Amino acid sequence: MGIIVQKFGGTSVADATKIKNVAKRVVQTHDEGHRVAVVVSAMGDTTDRLENLAYEISANPPERELAMLMSTGEQVSIALLAMAVSELGHRAISLTGTQVGIMTGGFYSEARIQSINRGRILSELEQGKIVILAGYQGVTIDNEITTLGRGASDTTAVAVAATLDADRCDIYTDVDGVYTADPRIVPNARKLGQITHDEMLEMARLGAKVLHSRSVELAKKFDVNLCVRSSFTESEGTIVVKEGEMIEEVVVSGVTSDKDQAKVSLLGVPDTPGIAARIFQEIADTHINIDMIIQNISHEGTTDISFTVAKKDLGATLKIAEILKAKIGCQNISTDKNIAKVSAIGIGMKSHVGIAARMFRALADEGINIQMISTSEIKISCVIDDREAEHAVRAIHDRFELGNTSNENVGIQG
Amino acid sequence: MGIIVQKFGGTSVADATKIKNVAKRVVQTHDEGHRVAVVVSAMGDTTDRLENLAYEISANPPERELAMLMSTGEQVSIALLAMAVSELGHRAISLTGTQVGIMTGGFYSEARIQSINRGRILSELEQGKIVILAGYQGVTIDNEITTLGRGASDTTAVAVAATLDADRCDIYTDVDGVYTADPRIVPNARKLGQITHDEMLEMARLGAKVLHSRSVELAKKFDVNLCVRSSFTESEGTIVVKEGEMIEEVVVSGVTSDKDQAKVSLLGVPDTPGIAARIFQEIADTHINIDMIIQNISHEGTTDISFTVAKKDLGATLKIAEILKAKIGCQNISTDKNIAKVSAIGIGMKSHVGIAARMFRALADEGINIQMISTSEIKISCVIDDREAEHAVRAIHDRFELGNTSNENVGIQG
Repeated sequence: MGIIVQKFGGTSVADATKIKNVAKRVVQTHDEGHRVAVVVSAMGDTTDRLENLAYEISANPPERELAMLMSTGEQVSIALLAMAVSELGHRAISLTGTQVGIMTGGFYSEARIQSINRGRILSELEQGKIVILAGYQGVTIDNEITTLGRGASDTTAVAVAATLDADRCDIYTDVDGVYTADPRIVPNARKLGQITHDEMLEMARLGAKVLHSRSVELAKKFDVNLCVRSSFTESEGTIVVKEGEMIEEVVVSGVTSDKDQAKVSLLGVPDTPGIAARIFQEIADTHINIDMIIQNISHEGTTDISFTVAKKDLGATLKIAEILKAKIGCQNISTDKNIAKVSAIGIGMKSHVGIAARMFRALADEGINIQMISTSEIKISCVIDDREAEHAVRAIHDRFELGNTSNENVGIQG
Repeated sequence: MGIIVQKFGGTSVADATKIKNVAKRVVQTHDEGHRVAVVVSAMGDTTDRLENLAYEISANPPERELAMLMSTGEQVSIALLAMAVSELGHRAISLTGTQVGIMTGGFYSEARIQSINRGRILSELEQGKIVILAGYQGVTIDNEITTLGRGASDTTAVAVAATLDADRCDIYTDVDGVYTADPRIVPNARKLGQITHDEMLEMARLGAKVLHSRSVELAKKFDVNLCVRSSFTESEGTIVVKEGEMIEEVVVSGVTSDKDQAKVSLLGVPDTPGIAARIFQEIADTHINIDMIIQNISHEGTTDISFTVAKKDLGATLKIAEILKAKIGCQNISTDKNIAKVSAIGIGMKSHVGIAARMFRALADEGINIQMISTSEIKISCVIDDREAEHAVRAIHDRFELGNTSNENVGIQG
């Protein structure tokens, strides 16, 4: 009997009624003859509420205590879902990250899963129970509670599916799949039936909030059958497939925007070998994620290096930049929070030329100025003024003819 | 350097501001040169809120999942208090029941503490940290989360104090000590400077909500210096002392009332040897606590047996009573929820005669009818109509002249 992992996000378990609906769906899958392991997030806005409570007490709460606090959100959900499944006459057992042994390294936040104790889950499944696991949380070898980062319940689900060698990992969310663009911005955005791991990864990284990017990495690495579908409808979702399994290969699969970045520029950096390595090592040491990095050709022995970071990390980044300024003798630091990154993603780019030019032309035709460009094999990102973000997404989406001709979409993609 | 255990109840940590105040008090004690272990309850009405959520989902949630759910309340408090202490520049660490190793037996609710791993607490204290422990929760040998029963954070605190051989265990609450009666009922009730363990135990059992009765049992057994005091004022609390240490021995220390009981009568029970044992064994097997038991002399080979249970257990008790009715052939079952138990407690009763008569006379003079009576060495309880409860408490309190002559009390005692 095969195992199916189902993951339900915060909006899917936001209140008692929704939890009961999730229980019905879980039980239905169980009754169809599968063994079912469920991963759940915290209810609705619980995570925000807990975080606000922490910041009422301290502007800089210790990460250990934040993890202790935040992990309670999922513990509430798993207990309630287990009750709801029991109420339907099925046996259920909830397990915290500590109980199931979702082992992580020593960081309290953004911790990485190292291993999962499949024995406990399998033994409960073999007893005919529906196993309900807390997403987002792990535990260290010293029994310390850790958290995996915002949105990381997806990652828990995929890691559990990989560990159990599950037939499928279904991510239930408040949208019914992955769209060519956010339908709130682009009304005729189209739901994709399939998307490759790499495309999904870029979409996730580049602002589509539908899947946590580490979950897609894991799914690719461990060959997990991943599917994004709606908790609220029966509609078929989007299947994340291997590159070779893609039936219809399109040039561009989707367009995303991300306003959560800020730009930092180090101006007049001495252009000596190893300077970039020094700068970014120093930043990496503080666990700040750098996104785009741009270094242009140098003039008169100095160069400008720009990069983007998450807005929340801007303060910490500036502190390091000031230290670096003194150490390496750069002339100035400038920052800009009012930026957006718009991106076109598609596996088909590999075999098609001129995609970048077509995207830049779409922006130019609308009079939108490009501040930074970054490309990979399957995506092109441009940093622009954040006030132009929606405008730019629509222009690129139109230019690549991604939309439906009709306008019948529902759903949201961040 | 001696250890002080401080316990703060839900009203003391009801919001961010109150948690910060608790942190100040904890840090002050630490700075006075003590090692400090703190036990906290869930914030304000969290426990009720979680319980309501559970009952929205299931009328009869599995106890395992209830424990999983309820234990999150304390986990939130310990994390927030640890943050608040850190914010004051002190080192703090929060520990769940699982982490600290508050080992209990296999029951998920009303579990009993079997042992506490003092090593973990001591090692953190020795590093100069303020250790913040979750009350109310424990863990089994199989890593299952258990809860100790409503109000049992007091018991956690006393057990921790006993384990650490602490100098003192201070129970901070929203009243400034133990009163001769509930000041909301008896305006001139007087705060007691001292009370013996046995008196406190009876007070707690008989409706005074100021201390969890198991905490008093433990304090007596392990000779813990226990003190009840206010989180919100600096006033001296009530010290719970050994019998021999009582300076001023009074006849009656306090008067309590409890409306949380219901009366069940089995009428026309065959008066054969062992019948009471059978009845109460059957009820005990379902973990329902029986309070008062009354059996009168028999008539014509049958007798009536009455007992009281907590109102919440009435439904379950009636189910067993119906089974018993069939098994043992009793004629009828009657119940009454509209009862109150009023009690007078005092160590001095041991050496004074006529106390019971004086109490019955006080009720008779007010025209209050007594339905059941139960006495012990140091308490007398009467079951009366619940509408007469306050009236009866005032009458008894007056009769034993327990009040202040002035009327300057503040505080609440349930």
